[in-house]
Amino acid sequence: MASVSIVGASGYVGQETLDRVLAHPALELYALGSDSLAGQTPATLDPRLGRNGWSRMPRFITNEAVLHAGADVTFLCLSHEEAAALEPPSRGVVVDLSGAHRFADSQIYSDWYGFEHPRPGSLGAWSYGLPELSAPGGRLVANPGCYATAVLLALGPIAAEIEPTGVVVDAKSGMTGAGRTPQSSSHAGVVLENVSPYKVGAHQHAPEIAAQLGFAVTFVPHLLPVRRGLLATCFVRSRGSDLRAVLEEHYGASHVVDVLPEGVVPELARVQQTDGAEIGVFEDSLTGDSIVICALDNLGKGAAGQAVQNVNLLFGLDETTGLRLSGVLV
Amino acid sequence: MASVSIVGASGYVGQETLDRVLAHPALELYALGSDSLAGQTPATLDPRLGRNGWSRMPRFITNEAVLHAGADVTFLCLSHEEAAALEPPSRGVVVDLSGAHRFADSQIYSDWYGFEHPRPGSLGAWSYGLPELSAPGGRLVANPGCYATAVLLALGPIAAEIEPTGVVVDAKSGMTGAGRTPQSSSHAGVVLENVSPYKVGAHQHAPEIAAQLGFAVTFVPHLLPVRRGLLATCFVRSRGSDLRAVLEEHYGASHVVDVLPEGVVPELARVQQTDGAEIGVFEDSLTGDSIVICALDNLGKGAAGQAVQNVNLLFGLDETTGLRLSGVLV
Amino acid sequence: MASVSIVGASGYVGQETLDRVLAHPALELYALGSDSLAGQTPATLDPRLGRNGWSRMPRFITNEAVLHAGADVTFLCLSHEEAAALEPPSRGVVVDLSGAHRFADSQIYSDWYGFEHPRPGSLGAWSYGLPELSAPGGRLVANPGCYATAVLLALGPIAAEIEPTGVVVDAKSGMTGAGRTPQSSSHAGVVLENVSPYKVGAHQHAPEIAAQLGFAVTFVPHLLPVRRGLLATCFVRSRGSDLRAVLEEHYGASHVVDVLPEGVVPELARVQQTDGAEIGVFEDSLTGDSIVICALDNLGKGAAGQAVQNVNLLFGLDETTGLRLSGVLV
Amino acid sequence: MASVSIVGASGYVGQETLDRVLAHPALELYALGSDSLAGQTPATLDPRLGRNGWSRMPRFITNEAVLHAGADVTFLCLSHEEAAALEPPSRGVVVDLSGAHRFADSQIYSDWYGFEHPRPGSLGAWSYGLPELSAPGGRLVANPGCYATAVLLALGPIAAEIEPTGVVVDAKSGMTGAGRTPQSSSHAGVVLENVSPYKVGAHQHAPEIAAQLGFAVTFVPHLLPVRRGLLATCFVRSRGSDLRAVLEEHYGASHVVDVLPEGVVPELARVQQTDGAEIGVFEDSLTGDSIVICALDNLGKGAAGQAVQNVNLLFGLDETTGLRLSGVLV
Repeated sequence: MASVSIVGASGYVGQETLDRVLAHPALELYALGSDSLAGQTPATLDPRLGRNGWSRMPRFITNEAVLHAGADVTFLCLSHEEAAALEPPSRGVVVDLSGAHRFADSQIYSDWYGFEHPRPGSLGAWSYGLPELSAPGGRLVANPGCYATAVLLALGPIAAEIEPTGVVVDAKSGMTGAGRTPQSSSHAGVVLENVSPYKVGAHQHAPEIAAQLGFAVTFVPHLLPVRRGLLATCFVRSRGSDLRAVLEEHYGASHVVDVLPEGVVPELARVQQTDGAEIGVFEDSLTGDSIVICALDNLGKGAAGQAVQNVNLLFGLDETTGLRLSGVLV
Repeated sequence: MASVSIVGASGYVGQETLDRVLAHPALELYALGSDSLAGQTPATLDPRLGRNGWSRMPRFITNEAVLHAGADVTFLCLSHEEAAALEPPSRGVVVDLSGAHRFADSQIYSDWYGFEHPRPGSLGAWSYGLPELSAPGGRLVANPGCYATAVLLALGPIAAEIEPTGVVVDAKSGMTGAGRTPQSSSHAGVVLENVSPYKVGAHQHAPEIAAQLGFAVTFVPHLLPVRRGLLATCFVRSRGSDLRAVLEEHYGASHVVDVLPEGVVPELARVQQTDGAEIGVFEDSLTGDSIVICALDNLGKGAAGQAVQNVNLLFGLDETTGLRLSGVLV
Repeated sequence: MASVSIVGASGYVGQETLDRVLAHPALELYALGSDSLAGQTPATLDPRLGRNGWSRMPRFITNEAVLHAGADVTFLCLSHEEAAALEPPSRGVVVDLSGAHRFADSQIYSDWYGFEHPRPGSLGAWSYGLPELSAPGGRLVANPGCYATAVLLALGPIAAEIEPTGVVVDAKSGMTGAGRTPQSSSHAGVVLENVSPYKVGAHQHAPEIAAQLGFAVTFVPHLLPVRRGLLATCFVRSRGSDLRAVLEEHYGASHVVDVLPEGVVPELARVQQTDGAEIGVFEDSLTGDSIVICALDNLGKGAAGQAVQNVNLLFGLDETTGLRLSGVLV
Repeated sequence: MASVSIVGASGYVGQETLDRVLAHPALELYALGSDSLAGQTPATLDPRLGRNGWSRMPRFITNEAVLHAGADVTFLCLSHEEAAALEPPSRGVVVDLSGAHRFADSQIYSDWYGFEHPRPGSLGAWSYGLPELSAPGGRLVANPGCYATAVLLALGPIAAEIEPTGVVVDAKSGMTGAGRTPQSSSHAGVVLENVSPYKVGAHQHAPEIAAQLGFAVTFVPHLLPVRRGLLATCFVRSRGSDLRAVLEEHYGASHVVDVLPEGVVPELARVQQTDGAEIGVFEDSLTGDSIVICALDNLGKGAAGQAVQNVNLLFGLDETTGLRLSGVLV
């Protein structure tokens, strides 16, 4: 059993990571960090954590204390700027679920994240962990963004088969993707009966996608009146390959990513509350261009699920250990 | 006062047209058609129609009877195939809110609508009525589709200023756009917590858009967990013009379509239950491509509102007469 | 034309009041208050206010400045505590849309609102303005709460006909009822796919209802994943009267409140974005108890619409002047 | 391993039962019935069933064929009238998830279900299986209704402690509770931005609740714009006991039903996609009456989860085997 610490456990991503850790046969919760809840019992966050099964869970401590707890695995579930500023634990696997270590080039932070990276020299030590495309390569893992994950699952395997200019991605996300801190844009009075394009052509996942694909895409995210789930509709032009065949080949052995049969569209309901993803491939009748659509849960494969998947790989476990993958809920 | 008949008044589009007619100072309801409600009072459709203010409203009669009623204006609110099959009234203005008369080329019906047009010779007599781009030209008016309206409002004025290849439209519609007849795809158990791409690259509004713009776009519509409202996110490449300036110039005098200030995104809440539209213009930071986003109400500017706007123009009235346009509801 | 000032115009209730004032034939906007937007143009709040039709609207000024502007009508759209603390304008009609002046007994504020009323001696000068039950009686009007309005419309006319003990009200409100300030409980990530009972048996509208009815009811409000609209399901036992007949008689001449035909349930869609209300009357098959259900828009009849209705009465206008009442939108 | 047949596997309840069976360590799927899908592969119902893990699943056969398949356990997931008409398998455990066998008195079917029970003599052979209150007593089990389950979990343990007259239940359900067949009332265009009381005082779960409690309650169900989940708000008057204490005692050892700490309200998010339930207990500040609120998933504890729980008990397994109970998803 490996011991696990979670820094920033009271946010959406932190709680969701806790969920996976509690169900994982080879991980054991060791320390739970939250500056706002330090000293409180886990049940303060969620009454389910006060039930019998989890009665021996540790109380929240400060994030700083967690960082020095010396666990085998540390998940960083903080804001980009907070994660960028901290000195990661000197031992064990560290998975950063923020964007603070996804780029080798620190200039990206000034240009897209709104802050100067305080530790630019450390960026080279982190590897980008998207198991289906780039396995995590060391003890420091930058976990991909939710939009980036969906787009890269859809386009990564076919990046060399499509025209690199003119690629368009229209993405839609559920509201848990906006984080737990209340904001005007996440107020239900605004979100319901709405669909909001935001950071149009200016979202920080665009350079993340470009860095991995090797070329830039036009990227517009939208907020949906949906709790969980994310859909990326990607528009590309094949250079001649059968894109469906390439994707089916790439994901043929995966238990995480599924290429749907012809004519079947990805559906949020089938990926919500799971760590899997679905991909559909279509062709436009008029223009002949291809449309590759990826659905996943922004908190699952788009965050906590992928973080645990990365840890599984680093520990030599089956990559699906402890993930939420099965079931045929309606 | 011009007399008005509505054929197919019990569907979403029919009821919404009735709403505009009842509020219109120069239109008077004359006959109300519905094969399923023939013989019933209007209150059977909606209890509001049984209140005092509307106590003298006519009972529903059959659609066939309405067609021979001889009104000054007839609104056809039927399915595509039903509307294609009927002989329009021989006098008065006729506005078809279905797609049955939007194309000169009858082949489109076989290819995209799933039926042979039964009266192909009649198609040339209809004009396409999208007031901001192509004013209705005779007594027979084909009212544009909801998606087509949004895309054409966004792209029509700049069609000559953008590269005609590689244009992408990702559209999202509220569920009243799916019509009132219950179907598996409109069941709330499927729609809630979901966003469903459908007819991917194969929706019948794609050839409608192409016919008006003069070039084809890649088009993917999605169903939203939203009652009313439609958003079209359009991705284009300028040939050099300032697209915002062209759009602002084009709509400068309009009281129906509003080009939003820089940085402001269209919002469904501001167009729902109205007959107006909002347009936002953006540029992608990485690719430099332009993004033009149009929001409207699928039943307003996307159907009933535009139908009445067309009638206003044909009768020489102010185009906004009787439309739902004002207000700053939250 | 009477001049109008709005204090706290940037909240949901304030903006909605502005909407009614702009459409009112006998009211003219004079001053617009918002401490957070003072100095800004109205378009900062909503881009629609920057369009041609409203180009001569005044900029926002501070709430304090508005209070001294000397308008013929002043609408107070502030929090309970802010409204309680201020000295109302010394002339003109003042309508307080908060709860700060709904009770003669200042003890209610300590017990239910969480603050000592700072001006208890002033409470007697205000009248409770619920036109269908208690017309506003002077220039200072306390506008009823949204839940209280729905419950009182349902139960007020039959208060003497029902058993005063054992009355239960289960109410459900859309999220604009929670105010525009972001809070954890209004975060869409919590609200979607949820229905949240809150302040269970402890909501401040309970004493408001009791004060008007003359007896207490058990009251539980719930938050719905809905933008606008409120439904109050009231459970009562008749003392023998035909409750439907009493209600139909009471509202027979009203153009604001409609008692629905037997078997028809109130529907939010028919009252949303309006200033009207619908009432349905039913009987339980097993217990014989009566169920009276009232639907209204929390921002319409539940706030801004009723405020304007009160002003209309005080100015001797038709009570529906400027209200949003007509239409048969789907 | 016990073999399992599912009759009516393509509806919401049938698919959800399939989900639990596939995850159950002691149950093995044997036959899958659906008259509409007979002859098709399971992937026709849901593409997830075509993946590797379930590649050996049987094709759909007719419901009639399934009934004669001779499995150890047969789940009946049919409409009330279909289930009432059939001859149950002569061997093995049979769990009927419809209402067809929940009453000893066949008169209830004529009065509340709209049909004469075709096999009234068989009703006595079935036991009502609500494990927390009445364990299943033989091989023929009538699985409780979703609303009835929530109300009985809330009120069953305190039935002797409360006044039996004047009990009120206001219940709210997600749309999967309406069944998979499209209907006007389940059209998303009607459901979104709405909350619909239906079968007011006339729902068939009212006599089911009365039969189990021993007294009638006034019962009004509402449809929510929510996919899954159900909330029952129950209003009662204690005869003197501490109702919270009685409920905490009753459920102290349960891993399925949780009585929440004082002040915590049940939340759909915590029970959705699970087979558990949450209960909150409150008191009204004005009337002193008690409010007991129960949340569960209409397809989980309200249907499939409870069906499997009943089977577990009959087979002497831990009652939670194969249920969806753990996790702290946000």
